[in-house]
Amino acid sequence: MAQAVRVAADRIRKLEVQGARNVAIAAIKALEALAGETSAKTRKEFLKELSEARGILFASRETEPLMRNAVRWIINQVEQSGREKVNALAKVVSSSSSQFLKNLEASKECIAEIGAKRIRDNSVVFTHCHSSTVTHLLSKAKKDGKTFEVICTETRPVFQGRITAKEMLSLGVKTTLIVDSAARSFMRNADLVIVGADAITSEGNVINKIGTGTIALLAHEARKPFYVVSELLKFDPATVCGDYEKIEERSPDEVWKGAPERLIVRNPAFDVTRRDFIHGVICEEGIIPPHAVSEVIYRKYPWVF
Amino acid sequence: MAQAVRVAADRIRKLEVQGARNVAIAAIKALEALAGETSAKTRKEFLKELSEARGILFASRETEPLMRNAVRWIINQVEQSGREKVNALAKVVSSSSSQFLKNLEASKECIAEIGAKRIRDNSVVFTHCHSSTVTHLLSKAKKDGKTFEVICTETRPVFQGRITAKEMLSLGVKTTLIVDSAARSFMRNADLVIVGADAITSEGNVINKIGTGTIALLAHEARKPFYVVSELLKFDPATVCGDYEKIEERSPDEVWKGAPERLIVRNPAFDVTRRDFIHGVICEEGIIPPHAVSEVIYRKYPWVF
Amino acid sequence: MAQAVRVAADRIRKLEVQGARNVAIAAIKALEALAGETSAKTRKEFLKELSEARGILFASRETEPLMRNAVRWIINQVEQSGREKVNALAKVVSSSSSQFLKNLEASKECIAEIGAKRIRDNSVVFTHCHSSTVTHLLSKAKKDGKTFEVICTETRPVFQGRITAKEMLSLGVKTTLIVDSAARSFMRNADLVIVGADAITSEGNVINKIGTGTIALLAHEARKPFYVVSELLKFDPATVCGDYEKIEERSPDEVWKGAPERLIVRNPAFDVTRRDFIHGVICEEGIIPPHAVSEVIYRKYPWVF
Amino acid sequence: MAQAVRVAADRIRKLEVQGARNVAIAAIKALEALAGETSAKTRKEFLKELSEARGILFASRETEPLMRNAVRWIINQVEQSGREKVNALAKVVSSSSSQFLKNLEASKECIAEIGAKRIRDNSVVFTHCHSSTVTHLLSKAKKDGKTFEVICTETRPVFQGRITAKEMLSLGVKTTLIVDSAARSFMRNADLVIVGADAITSEGNVINKIGTGTIALLAHEARKPFYVVSELLKFDPATVCGDYEKIEERSPDEVWKGAPERLIVRNPAFDVTRRDFIHGVICEEGIIPPHAVSEVIYRKYPWVF
Amino acid sequence: MAQAVRVAADRIRKLEVQGARNVAIAAIKALEALAGETSAKTRKEFLKELSEARGILFASRETEPLMRNAVRWIINQVEQSGREKVNALAKVVSSSSSQFLKNLEASKECIAEIGAKRIRDNSVVFTHCHSSTVTHLLSKAKKDGKTFEVICTETRPVFQGRITAKEMLSLGVKTTLIVDSAARSFMRNADLVIVGADAITSEGNVINKIGTGTIALLAHEARKPFYVVSELLKFDPATVCGDYEKIEERSPDEVWKGAPERLIVRNPAFDVTRRDFIHGVICEEGIIPPHAVSEVIYRKYPWVF
Amino acid sequence: MAQAVRVAADRIRKLEVQGARNVAIAAIKALEALAGETSAKTRKEFLKELSEARGILFASRETEPLMRNAVRWIINQVEQSGREKVNALAKVVSSSSSQFLKNLEASKECIAEIGAKRIRDNSVVFTHCHSSTVTHLLSKAKKDGKTFEVICTETRPVFQGRITAKEMLSLGVKTTLIVDSAARSFMRNADLVIVGADAITSEGNVINKIGTGTIALLAHEARKPFYVVSELLKFDPATVCGDYEKIEERSPDEVWKGAPERLIVRNPAFDVTRRDFIHGVICEEGIIPPHAVSEVIYRKYPWVF
Repeated sequence: MAQAVRVAADRIRKLEVQGARNVAIAAIKALEALAGETSAKTRKEFLKELSEARGILFASRETEPLMRNAVRWIINQVEQSGREKVNALAKVVSSSSSQFLKNLEASKECIAEIGAKRIRDNSVVFTHCHSSTVTHLLSKAKKDGKTFEVICTETRPVFQGRITAKEMLSLGVKTTLIVDSAARSFMRNADLVIVGADAITSEGNVINKIGTGTIALLAHEARKPFYVVSELLKFDPATVCGDYEKIEERSPDEVWKGAPERLIVRNPAFDVTRRDFIHGVICEEGIIPPHAVSEVIYRKYPWVF
Repeated sequence: MAQAVRVAADRIRKLEVQGARNVAIAAIKALEALAGETSAKTRKEFLKELSEARGILFASRETEPLMRNAVRWIINQVEQSGREKVNALAKVVSSSSSQFLKNLEASKECIAEIGAKRIRDNSVVFTHCHSSTVTHLLSKAKKDGKTFEVICTETRPVFQGRITAKEMLSLGVKTTLIVDSAARSFMRNADLVIVGADAITSEGNVINKIGTGTIALLAHEARKPFYVVSELLKFDPATVCGDYEKIEERSPDEVWKGAPERLIVRNPAFDVTRRDFIHGVICEEGIIPPHAVSEVIYRKYPWVF
Repeated sequence: MAQAVRVAADRIRKLEVQGARNVAIAAIKALEALAGETSAKTRKEFLKELSEARGILFASRETEPLMRNAVRWIINQVEQSGREKVNALAKVVSSSSSQFLKNLEASKECIAEIGAKRIRDNSVVFTHCHSSTVTHLLSKAKKDGKTFEVICTETRPVFQGRITAKEMLSLGVKTTLIVDSAARSFMRNADLVIVGADAITSEGNVINKIGTGTIALLAHEARKPFYVVSELLKFDPATVCGDYEKIEERSPDEVWKGAPERLIVRNPAFDVTRRDFIHGVICEEGIIPPHAVSEVIYRKYPWVF
Repeated sequence: MAQAVRVAADRIRKLEVQGARNVAIAAIKALEALAGETSAKTRKEFLKELSEARGILFASRETEPLMRNAVRWIINQVEQSGREKVNALAKVVSSSSSQFLKNLEASKECIAEIGAKRIRDNSVVFTHCHSSTVTHLLSKAKKDGKTFEVICTETRPVFQGRITAKEMLSLGVKTTLIVDSAARSFMRNADLVIVGADAITSEGNVINKIGTGTIALLAHEARKPFYVVSELLKFDPATVCGDYEKIEERSPDEVWKGAPERLIVRNPAFDVTRRDFIHGVICEEGIIPPHAVSEVIYRKYPWVF
Repeated sequence: MAQAVRVAADRIRKLEVQGARNVAIAAIKALEALAGETSAKTRKEFLKELSEARGILFASRETEPLMRNAVRWIINQVEQSGREKVNALAKVVSSSSSQFLKNLEASKECIAEIGAKRIRDNSVVFTHCHSSTVTHLLSKAKKDGKTFEVICTETRPVFQGRITAKEMLSLGVKTTLIVDSAARSFMRNADLVIVGADAITSEGNVINKIGTGTIALLAHEARKPFYVVSELLKFDPATVCGDYEKIEERSPDEVWKGAPERLIVRNPAFDVTRRDFIHGVICEEGIIPPHAVSEVIYRKYPWVF
Repeated sequence: MAQAVRVAADRIRKLEVQGARNVAIAAIKALEALAGETSAKTRKEFLKELSEARGILFASRETEPLMRNAVRWIINQVEQSGREKVNALAKVVSSSSSQFLKNLEASKECIAEIGAKRIRDNSVVFTHCHSSTVTHLLSKAKKDGKTFEVICTETRPVFQGRITAKEMLSLGVKTTLIVDSAARSFMRNADLVIVGADAITSEGNVINKIGTGTIALLAHEARKPFYVVSELLKFDPATVCGDYEKIEERSPDEVWKGAPERLIVRNPAFDVTRRDFIHGVICEEGIIPPHAVSEVIYRKYPWVF
C-alpha cells in the first residue's frame, strides 16, 4: 500500500485538509500516488490495493460524500476498463483522476455561471459560513457587472464567516457581518439566501454548517428564496440505504477553551436543512428542486449507487 | 441637582451598570440621594429638580422601561402626596424608593415561585443569554427538589450564556452549552424554553437579547412551550403611543475587534419576539397571555400611562 | 362533619357523578346538607367545618375547577357575610348555594342563546364527545328554527359521542357519527366546530376530552371556525399561579379490557387545546377571545383569585 | 318624529352618505334636528321619539357600528340625565351630539399622531381601499417630515384606491397603484401595511373592504407588520351576543354592468380579517392587540354593552 | 375460466383475505391455478381467459393497486413472451407468478433492512394500525440489536393496533397502546413515525388506514420525521390518468352495531396523507421523497403505465 | 428571409396574437411559410435562415416558452434529418410543423380527459383568468355528464374572467363571477381550483396570470386542492440555466387610462406560484407533482435542453 494513502487519510483525519472539495482532491491524489508506486503484480493484487486504499480513505472522516464518490468512481473506472496489466490499470487510475478533477472544476464554473444569474442588480445576498463554491458564484456575478451587497454571519465557533467577509471585501462588494443570532433581524434586508453544502441525502435534505437549517427556516418565515449550491456528487448514496448522514461532533475547545469542568459543551459541525425550505439546488445540471436530486443522480451518475 | 443623578446616569450610559433590574436600582438610589441632598426651598423647586433628574436618567440609555417606570412612580408618589414641605416630600421619595425596591424583590420571588411549578421533574429547560430572574426561578425549582437539565446558548457576542452555565453548575444542575447556531439541533431535546425580557410592548411583543426571536420561532416549529419571565413594569408605555421600542446598537468591537476597515459590523443588542410565539408571560400577576399584558398593567399599575 | 360531604366526595371520586356541571351541583348540595346538619356552636367552628369540607371535596377529583370555584364562592360569601350566629351563617350557605345554581342555569341559557346565533341555516356543525352545554346550544338553535346537520365523533374510549348522536336524533337533527380517526376526512364537510370545556387556564388554553386538541388543529388546517362553549367559572385560578392543569389518567380497562400483561395502556381523559386554534370562547359574557378570559374573570368574578 | 331622521336614514340607505364616520355624523345630526323640532310633551314621549329614531337609523344600513354606537350613547346620555323637561332633554341631545363629534375628531387626531410614529423614514406603506383615517395618518407622517412611499391597490369594484392615490400625490408622496391581484407581487417591496376598518368584532376580528383579509394573509406570509387603524367605537356589541357581523352585498352592476343574464355576480362589500394577522389596532387608546379590544371597550366605553 | 379465479375474487370481496400483500398473493395464485387448469386451445383463447380473470379480480375490491399491478405484470409477461403454445404460455404464468412473489418477498426484506437503520438506539417509534411491512422492519431493528419503544394507536374501528401491540410485545419491545384520539398527546414522546401504505398516487400522496393523515399532520406539527414504508408497486397508475384513488367505505356495523336507525354512520377505511407531510417513502429502491415516486416507477417498473 | 416570419413576430409583439398556444401556432405557421418561400440554395443557407427566424421570433415576446420550444423542436428535426437538399429540408419543416400542431392538439385532449376525472359530481370549481386548456377540460367534464358549478374571478385589468364566465354559461354551467379581491371569501365554497399556466420553471414553479399565486395561497390556507393544467412544453429550459422567468410588464393604460401624471401604475402580467401550493400539474403525461416536471421533460422531451 502506498504510503501516500495513509498520509492523506491522516491529514484528513486531523483536519489538516478541510472543505469537501479539498478533501476529495487529497484522496484522488493519494490514489494517483498509489497507482504510481504500486508493487502489485496482477490485476487482482492491484484491485486489492485499491480496495484497501478505499477502506482507509473512507474511514478518515465521517461526512465526506464527495471524496467517497470520487474514490468510488475511479475504482469503478478501473474495474470496468477490462485491462489486465497493472501498468494499464495504473494509467486508468491516473487518467480518471485527472478526469474527475477536471469535471469538478467544470462543475464549479458551471454552478457559478448559473447561480450568478440569480443575483439581480442591487440585491442583497445573505450567506452563512464560508463556501468556496458560493464565493466563486458571487465573484462571477461581480465579474458579470452586477451590483449587490452581502450579509454574512460570523459562523461560530470557528468564524468562517470572517473569511467570506474578507473575500467579499476584496471583490469590492459592500459587506455586513453579524453574529449568528442576528440572522432573523437582518433577514428582512436580504433578497435571497445562498449557502453551500457538505452532503445531500436521498430525501433531498442538505447537510451543511451548523446554523444553516435555522437560516433556511428564517428565509422561509420571511418568504425569501433560499438556494443551496452544490456539486451533485455531494449526494450520499448511503442515505438511500437508510443510513443517517453522520453529523461530525468536534472539540468543545472550539466553543469554550477552559470551560468549567462539569459543563457539557456540545459542538456538532453540521445540521440538516429540510428540502421544503430549499427553493432550488444550484448544481452542474442547473437549478433543480431538492426533491429531484436522487433521480438526477440516477440519470447522470448511475455508478454512484 | 444632586451630583448622584448625573453620576448614576453616566454609569448607566457607560454600561458600568447593566441589566434592567440593576439599572432601575441605580436610578432609584440616585433619586434617594437627590432627596437627601436637595437644596430646594419649595415644593415647586423640588418638583423641578425631580423633573430634571428624570430627564437626565431617561436620556442615559434607550431600552430601559423598568428604570423609567420606577422613576415615573416615585415622582408620581411625590406629586400625589399633597405635601408641601420639601422635607416631607424628600421623605416620600425615600419611602417610595424603598417601597419600589421591596416590590421589585417581591416580584422576583413571586415569579420564581410561579415559574418553578412549570419545571416538571426530569425535564430539560432551554434558555438563552443570562437573566437573573430566570436563574432565580431555576434555583427555586432546584430548591423545590426538582431534577432537571439546562441547555444554554453561549450568546454571542458577549457570551452571557457562560454566566448562566456557571450558575447552573453551581446549583448542581446538569448543564449543556452550545453555540447559538446549534439551537435548532438541540431544541428537539428540550421540554420547554424560558427566557427573560428587557421590555414588553403594548402589542404584547417582547424585547430581549438578540437571538431570542429566533429561539421562539424554533420552539414554535418544534411545538415546545416558550415562556418569558418578566416583572410587569418592563412594559414600555411609550409603545402604546406608537413609539417603536428602540433597539440599542452596540460597539462592533464586541463582535470583531480588528475587523477589516471597510467591513460593516452590525451589533444590535436586542430583537423582538412576536406575541404569537409566547405561551405565557410569567410575571408577578401569574402566567398571562402576552396579549393581555397591557390590560393587566392598566388594572394593576394605571399610573404607568 | 356532615356525612353528606364525604358521601358526595366519594361519589365524585368513583365517577358516579360525572360532568363538570353535575360534579359542581353535587358539591354544592353537600355544602347545603352540611349547613343543615351542622353541630357547630360558633362562627369559628362552622368555618372550620366548611374548610374541612372544602378539603375533602377538592381532593375528590383532579380536574374540576367549576366545582372548586363553586365551593370557593359559597365559603367566601359566608366569610364576608359578617354574621356571627351559626344559624345565620348556615342560611348564607343555603342562599348562596341557591344563587350559584341559579346563576349556573342562567349561564347555560345565555350561552345557548348566544351560541345558537352562530349556527347559520343549512350549516354543518362538527362536535366531539358529549357536552350538555353544547347540546343545549344546538337544541336552542333547532328551536330557533335553524336547519343544520351534526357530525359527531364516537369519542373513544367511552363512546360519549353516541350520547350526543342520540340527543341530536331526538331533536330531529340529521346526524352522522364517525370514528375519531376520521375527523380529518369529514372536517371538509363541516362549517364550524363547537366543543365543550372541562377547564380553562390562565394562558387561555382549554382542557377538554382527549382528542379535542387534534380536532382544533384539524379545524385550523381547514380554516373552519372552532368555538369552545364554557361557563367562565371553569377557569382554573391555580394555573395563574403556575400549576399545570392536572390531566386525569383513567383505567386502562376503558381502553382494552384484558390487554396483554406487559402492554402499557395509557388513558388520559383530557388534552390541551392551544388558544391559537380557538376562534372564540362562548360564555355567559358573550363570545370572547380565549386570550382575554383571565381579564374577564378578573372583571366579573374577582373573588376567584 | 322629525322628518330629518327619515331623510338621513334614506340617504344612508341609498349610499348618498358613505364611510363609517360620515354615516355616524349624519345620524347624529338627525338626532339633533329631532331634538330641535320635537313636539313631545313629556319625557316619556320624547324618549319614545328617540327610540323610534334609533329604530329607523339602525335599519338604514347593515354594517355601521360607529353610527349605532353614536346613537346609543346620545340616547343613553338623555336617559341618564335625570332631567324631566323636554326642553332640558333636548339640550342633552344637542350637547352630547357635539361632544360625540368632538371626541370623534379627537380620536382621529390621536390615531394619526400615534400611527405616524410607526412610519419609519424611507419606508414603503402598503394600503388598500380608501380610509380617511389612514390618509389622515399618512398626512400627519408627512407633516412630521417623514419620507415614505405608498403602494395602493385600485380596489375593485369601485376603485376607491384611486382616491387614496390622488390624496397621496397631492401630499407629494411617491405613489404606486396596482390591480388588487398584484398585491402579492408587491408585498415584498412594502415595509408595513396600514388599513382602516368598518367594524371590529368581540373576537377581535376586523371587518373592512373586500380584499383586506387577503392582504393581511399576504402580509403574514411575507412577515410584514399589518396594522388596522380604527376608532374603538367601530366595535360592534352585537357580536358579543353571538350575531355575525352582517356583510353588505351590493349591486352586481358595480362589478359588471350588462353581465350575461344567467351569470351570478356576487358583490360583498366587506370581508373578515382574522385577529391573528393583525399586529395591532391603532386606536385612540394607543396600539393594542386585537385580542384585547373588547376588554378595552369595557374599560373605556362600558355603556356600549 | 378457472373456478379458482372466481373463488379468489369472492374471498377478496368478502374480506376473507386482507392486507394489500395477501390480496396480491391470492390473485397471483388464482392466475396460477387458471394456467394449470386452462382448457384454452390457442394463444388467443388463453389471453382472453387471462383478460377475463383480470376483469374479475380487478372488480373484487376498490383500493388494491398491488394486486392489480401483479396481475398486470404477469399478463404482460405472457403477452411479451412471444410463445404461441398454450402450454408454454401457462408456464410463463407460472414462472412469472413465482418471480413476482419472490420479488415481493425480497422487497419486504430490503425495506426492513433500510428502514431498520432509521431506528436509533433508545428511540420511540410511533405507528398506526397494523402493517406487516412495518412490523417486519421493527423486528429487523430488534434483531440488529437496537433498543427502542413503540407507541401504537388502537386503530378504530377494528382495533388492528392491538395486533401490532401483541407482535411488539412478542419481540420483547416495550409497547404503549393509546386510543386514536390521544395521538397528539403522545406525539411529543415519539422520535419518529412509521406507517404502511395501501396505495400511492401519482401526486405522491399516500392512501392508508383512516387516521394516517391526521397522524402525519401531528408529526409535522411537532417536527417529527414521518416515514411511509411501501413496496413501490402499491403505486396506482390509474391516478396518473386522473382517477381519484377510491376510498372503500365499509359496514357501519364495524363502528356501532345496533346504532339508532336514523343515524348515519360513515366508515371510510382509508384516508389520504399529503406528500408534504412525508419525509420519505422507504421502498425497495431506498428512501425517496414521495414527490419522486412516479419517476422511480417509470425507471424501474415502466410496464406499470 | 420570408416576410411571414417578420409579420408573425410583429403581430406577436403587438399582442394581436395572444395566448401561449396561439402564439406558438403563429410561429410554427411562419416557419412553414418560410420553408415554402425559401430562396436558400444549400443546407447551410437554409439553416441560417431558420436560425435568423428563430432569433426574430424569440425576440417578439418575453414569456413564451411554448412557442420557443416549438421553434426549437422544428429546427432540431431539420438539423437531425440528415437531408442535404433544401427541398427535402423544407419538407421536414412542413412535416414536423404538422406533427407539432397535432401533438399540441392531442395534449389538449389528453389533459382534458385526465383533468375531467378530477371534477366530482356536484362540486364547485374555482378558476382565475381565461385558459382555453382549462375551459376545454371543463367542457369535457360537462360532456362526461358531470354536474358542477364554476366560480371565476373577473381578472383585472383586462377582465379575461368574463370570457371564462361566458364560455361556462354557454356550456350550461352554473357560474358565479366575483372581483379578484373576493377570492378569499368564496374559496370556502369551492371544492378545488384549476388554473392554466404560461410557463413552468426548472424549480417546479408556475408562471401564470397575475393573481394566480395569491389564489394558490388561499387554496392552501383553506386546504383545497390546487391544480395547474399545462402542456409540458410550457417548461422553460432557460430557467434550468439560472435565468429568471421574465415577467412581462404591460401598459399602465390597461389599469387606469388617464391616471394622474405623477402616479406610477405598475402592471405586471404574470406572477409566480410556488410549487408547494400546487397539488399536481395536469399534463399530457398525467397528473404529476410540480417537483418532477423537469425530470419528466428530460424523459419525454430531452431535446428541450
